[in-house]
Amino acid sequence: MLAARLHSYTDEMGDALSLDEIDRPTIGASDDVVVEVEGAGWCQTDNHIIEGMWTAYVEQDLPMTLGHENAGTIVEVGEEVSLVEEGDRVICHPVQTCGICRPCRLGETMYCENQSFNGLTTDGGFAGELLTSERSVVPLPDGVDPVDIAPHADAGITAYHAAKKAVEGLNPGDFAVVIGVGGLGHIGLQCLNAMSAAEIVAVDVKQSARGLADDLGAHYTLNPERQDIPNELNNITDGTGAAQVLDFVGADETTSLAPEICAVGGDHHIIGYGGHIHEPAQALVDGEFAYQGNIVGRYTELQELVALIERDEVTLHTDRYELAEINDVAKKLERGEVDGRAVITP
Amino acid sequence: MLAARLHSYTDEMGDALSLDEIDRPTIGASDDVVVEVEGAGWCQTDNHIIEGMWTAYVEQDLPMTLGHENAGTIVEVGEEVSLVEEGDRVICHPVQTCGICRPCRLGETMYCENQSFNGLTTDGGFAGELLTSERSVVPLPDGVDPVDIAPHADAGITAYHAAKKAVEGLNPGDFAVVIGVGGLGHIGLQCLNAMSAAEIVAVDVKQSARGLADDLGAHYTLNPERQDIPNELNNITDGTGAAQVLDFVGADETTSLAPEICAVGGDHHIIGYGGHIHEPAQALVDGEFAYQGNIVGRYTELQELVALIERDEVTLHTDRYELAEINDVAKKLERGEVDGRAVITP
Amino acid sequence: MLAARLHSYTDEMGDALSLDEIDRPTIGASDDVVVEVEGAGWCQTDNHIIEGMWTAYVEQDLPMTLGHENAGTIVEVGEEVSLVEEGDRVICHPVQTCGICRPCRLGETMYCENQSFNGLTTDGGFAGELLTSERSVVPLPDGVDPVDIAPHADAGITAYHAAKKAVEGLNPGDFAVVIGVGGLGHIGLQCLNAMSAAEIVAVDVKQSARGLADDLGAHYTLNPERQDIPNELNNITDGTGAAQVLDFVGADETTSLAPEICAVGGDHHIIGYGGHIHEPAQALVDGEFAYQGNIVGRYTELQELVALIERDEVTLHTDRYELAEINDVAKKLERGEVDGRAVITP
Amino acid sequence: MLAARLHSYTDEMGDALSLDEIDRPTIGASDDVVVEVEGAGWCQTDNHIIEGMWTAYVEQDLPMTLGHENAGTIVEVGEEVSLVEEGDRVICHPVQTCGICRPCRLGETMYCENQSFNGLTTDGGFAGELLTSERSVVPLPDGVDPVDIAPHADAGITAYHAAKKAVEGLNPGDFAVVIGVGGLGHIGLQCLNAMSAAEIVAVDVKQSARGLADDLGAHYTLNPERQDIPNELNNITDGTGAAQVLDFVGADETTSLAPEICAVGGDHHIIGYGGHIHEPAQALVDGEFAYQGNIVGRYTELQELVALIERDEVTLHTDRYELAEINDVAKKLERGEVDGRAVITP
Repeated sequence: MLAARLHSYTDEMGDALSLDEIDRPTIGASDDVVVEVEGAGWCQTDNHIIEGMWTAYVEQDLPMTLGHENAGTIVEVGEEVSLVEEGDRVICHPVQTCGICRPCRLGETMYCENQSFNGLTTDGGFAGELLTSERSVVPLPDGVDPVDIAPHADAGITAYHAAKKAVEGLNPGDFAVVIGVGGLGHIGLQCLNAMSAAEIVAVDVKQSARGLADDLGAHYTLNPERQDIPNELNNITDGTGAAQVLDFVGADETTSLAPEICAVGGDHHIIGYGGHIHEPAQALVDGEFAYQGNIVGRYTELQELVALIERDEVTLHTDRYELAEINDVAKKLERGEVDGRAVITP
Repeated sequence: MLAARLHSYTDEMGDALSLDEIDRPTIGASDDVVVEVEGAGWCQTDNHIIEGMWTAYVEQDLPMTLGHENAGTIVEVGEEVSLVEEGDRVICHPVQTCGICRPCRLGETMYCENQSFNGLTTDGGFAGELLTSERSVVPLPDGVDPVDIAPHADAGITAYHAAKKAVEGLNPGDFAVVIGVGGLGHIGLQCLNAMSAAEIVAVDVKQSARGLADDLGAHYTLNPERQDIPNELNNITDGTGAAQVLDFVGADETTSLAPEICAVGGDHHIIGYGGHIHEPAQALVDGEFAYQGNIVGRYTELQELVALIERDEVTLHTDRYELAEINDVAKKLERGEVDGRAVITP
Repeated sequence: MLAARLHSYTDEMGDALSLDEIDRPTIGASDDVVVEVEGAGWCQTDNHIIEGMWTAYVEQDLPMTLGHENAGTIVEVGEEVSLVEEGDRVICHPVQTCGICRPCRLGETMYCENQSFNGLTTDGGFAGELLTSERSVVPLPDGVDPVDIAPHADAGITAYHAAKKAVEGLNPGDFAVVIGVGGLGHIGLQCLNAMSAAEIVAVDVKQSARGLADDLGAHYTLNPERQDIPNELNNITDGTGAAQVLDFVGADETTSLAPEICAVGGDHHIIGYGGHIHEPAQALVDGEFAYQGNIVGRYTELQELVALIERDEVTLHTDRYELAEINDVAKKLERGEVDGRAVITP
Repeated sequence: MLAARLHSYTDEMGDALSLDEIDRPTIGASDDVVVEVEGAGWCQTDNHIIEGMWTAYVEQDLPMTLGHENAGTIVEVGEEVSLVEEGDRVICHPVQTCGICRPCRLGETMYCENQSFNGLTTDGGFAGELLTSERSVVPLPDGVDPVDIAPHADAGITAYHAAKKAVEGLNPGDFAVVIGVGGLGHIGLQCLNAMSAAEIVAVDVKQSARGLADDLGAHYTLNPERQDIPNELNNITDGTGAAQVLDFVGADETTSLAPEICAVGGDHHIIGYGGHIHEPAQALVDGEFAYQGNIVGRYTELQELVALIERDEVTLHTDRYELAEINDVAKKLERGEVDGRAVITP
């Protein structure tokens, strides 16, 4: 089968991945499954992987097939698989888990001590087929198209995971700020709306993103290029600040907003990354806020997100591309030319 | 009456405060109380106030009497006071609250929107008497000496407040790290022990502090001048890291430990301050940990701490000084020559 | 002023209350306020008070003016009141609190140890004016009519309080059951919808109530006179049961549903009352469910509910009656002839 | 091998189980393990199973080997087992789980939708060997004797599970009541002490049980045959009641204490069973307390309990019996002649 593989790290997106002909995967363990990939979302993290930005955090054996946002149809199952059978349509949680370590037992599957991560530490889904396990697939409800839902496998549950944590700190009348209404941010905004009655303030430099935020139910939108965000939020919140901030950008300029925009006792969730936090410890003491890191969500959170999607509480704008176009997609995202989410259809 | 007052900010502790003769305070509002101060703890924050380090965060009218860790005896009460009467012994929560704003209604009294803070934004207790309110005093159980308990008014509840948050994330078998076993740290360590069954690792450069940690129930002690903290913790925790870190130091070298010592999903609590956080957003994403700010505790947490003290679950080492010695105490603390807590007895 | 007062307990609603001419209330304490009552909701609990059903739980001095769901305009304030001034429109939390006891400090104002309860233990609002305190009034947003909002003072926050607890146990894809879509139930249903993405199943014997539930966003409605509730729920929930049940009826037939309809680990919230619980302890062990009692909500929950109302997330059907019609209203409710909520306009 | 099996339900304990010679179990699935049973605790639930009391709740195929509190040594493993190997000593969680259903994914392993329960729905451990799975065994720390720890497999984690829930509602200064200081109760009491700073009141009719409670750290003990429990608790708690009640008896006389002894907002945990709850719904409304059912704990809770045991925070009194004495043990327990826990050593 054909697979889009990374052979060496590069800052040059134009020909970062090569289309190799490789063997299709085969069942090893009794709970393995093989999925014919119908949709595989392209993610900002794919650009970061190509740049080598994850080598400090995880081990990667190159060449590796990228692609961690996958959905498709089961084509082969291990002998003890009971959850799915051939022909079932599924979305693939990117973390393949052991089920035996304490984090798995606790339900914190994204902390699995023996995990592999599709397209990050093991072959992913920019290919005809993907080898994963019964533990990492969620059956799709009738009528949900794998291509449409694929990006939820990572973008979706990461946004959902952060939103779910934020919702615990949001009472009616409280304010939530969503910084960056892109691929993840526009999902996070919808999750906040579905699961809380908070007032939502969306912040984005792009007019189209702010317009999307409006359509998806934001109560206020702000443009950081023209407006002073702390001042505006101070007015909007009558001086109390935002109980919860979801920072889908994670740049120096966005993390540095926290002391001024977080309500006392609030949280500034770090979801996007690329920049740094530089703050005096005293700022956190005085405002009693937290910089809360966020990783991909749990397996059960993917189930919950699928339930939201089935109820039309969360919608996603996707554009489809052939596998052969994959390096163009990488370039487009780098230049900020992708609205919503690009999905490869191998 | 005599009061130790700050007239201007200075880095020179030796004669920072002047002993002024001022009028004793008088009852204004119906719920006011006047407390004859018997003990008033000296805190690292007093040094920071003298240096002007809080001017960026709060408004201060100088001259001002410092002292935010006070206990003593009620000598006058407003006409609608029902909680206490003349002669009652009390510990004074440093935050004077309105009881009417939403944070007060929620029980988050330290976030009161109309607060004044003893010795930080209004006259404190390095004086014969302190004006405060029925809302900010906790009656003492029989047999508890105001001088002994005074430092708990701030050092105690700040440590308790952080420990209580940490305990929510500590199961039996989990590890908690206490960085800095000084005035606050040695209280926090005892609170962790009283309220959880976690394994406690105490980190301090001073041999005497590590010895104190041992005596108070730490399961491990580490010396950061001789030992590599991340490596040692990795061994102690069998690679999982610490579910909760209480950083009572808050220096650059301690905040930077978080990515290496926090368990995935854990919290690095910032309680001490002075240094900065400098970390890539990606570190928080990868490890899904939080830098959690901590401020002084709630009024009800002071009640809970008094209950722990009454049960002998928390003890405190104090040395007593005359009001006239107050500038010497400031110097001693600056030089690290105070073990436990210095208490002024005005 | 005229006031509708109970002189003796009776099962006869037709002339239970007498319209007495009494003195208007006067300010006593420094934080007292007097409210000119514009709307005062009639509640099932008023019927229960008349029947003497609360004498086993609280002390009542008759004669007493009933009415615990009040809203109106401030006409006089004590000398230290800062939250409101004459002319402000407010909704009155029924519990008058001390602000000093530990429950008040914790924000659990409905547990105040020194409380009085409007129309239950002290004179209520079926009268021209009501004496209460700054601690128990919530200012109304512009454009909210006191008559329309009055029933939220008790019916509203009781429903909100239970719904808020339930929401903590509701993930997307989970099921919530609302038993009884009357005065409280139809508010609770809207609160669930505003604050969660759960599937809502409404159960009521009345066709009009089921129709209302449909309009307010219930995903399923069931008629217990024609349908077997456990069987139907088993089908709807695919055998898992309801994670949360809100029982606004509290009759023997509804509490006995719990073992069959609660999901394992779920809660059956008791809000309505009148009936009993009769279950073997083993049923609770086997299903690990709880019978969770619910009382009126916190002061801060009334603030949150007002925020929901301001956002049009919760609407309420009310009919207006003169004070002179009050005994007719009592009879009507007894006969089940009140749809939505009857509001007296003294 | 020899196994103690139930062939038919009976109220006659004296010869309820027959010692049958049956085949030793063999590995089926890839994650199966076979444990040579060294200790198997006898539990009150075994008596209830013999009486047929569980037939209304679960399906049972007789004859069946009883015994759900097992520990021993791994003697055979399936081909994909990675957690343990032959020769490892383990304690066996009684619930055999699938790992695939949503409850398992959430970590709520005791709610597994495809579970079997040792000695309740599948053959248990009153036999030479037990067939279970890698998913249901916890390796023992060095130096822990399987015979000593066996009863923790059910008695221990059930008590721990309830205590852990209770601890969430216990602040320093709050009161917890333990009703019944028997096999489960004396473990629950120790867990409360290890994980909270609450004041503990132990209630038991037996002098020996009250003495044991004293030794294990109860702050008060009460004898319900001589003392009026509500009055005594009212005095002890200064009128506030117990924030958490752990009812290890579950008789009519103990469940009926709740309205009088629970603090408002508190929980009465049902752990023991046999009796009923009979209370007016109004009592739960007025006191806002809950009857909270409790079942066996999670797999991860068994890990946590083993951590407590390793730290000597929880000790257990056991007496050892031969498999041939098993019917005598059943009789002894029925007559209340077992102190602590009887362990069969097959």
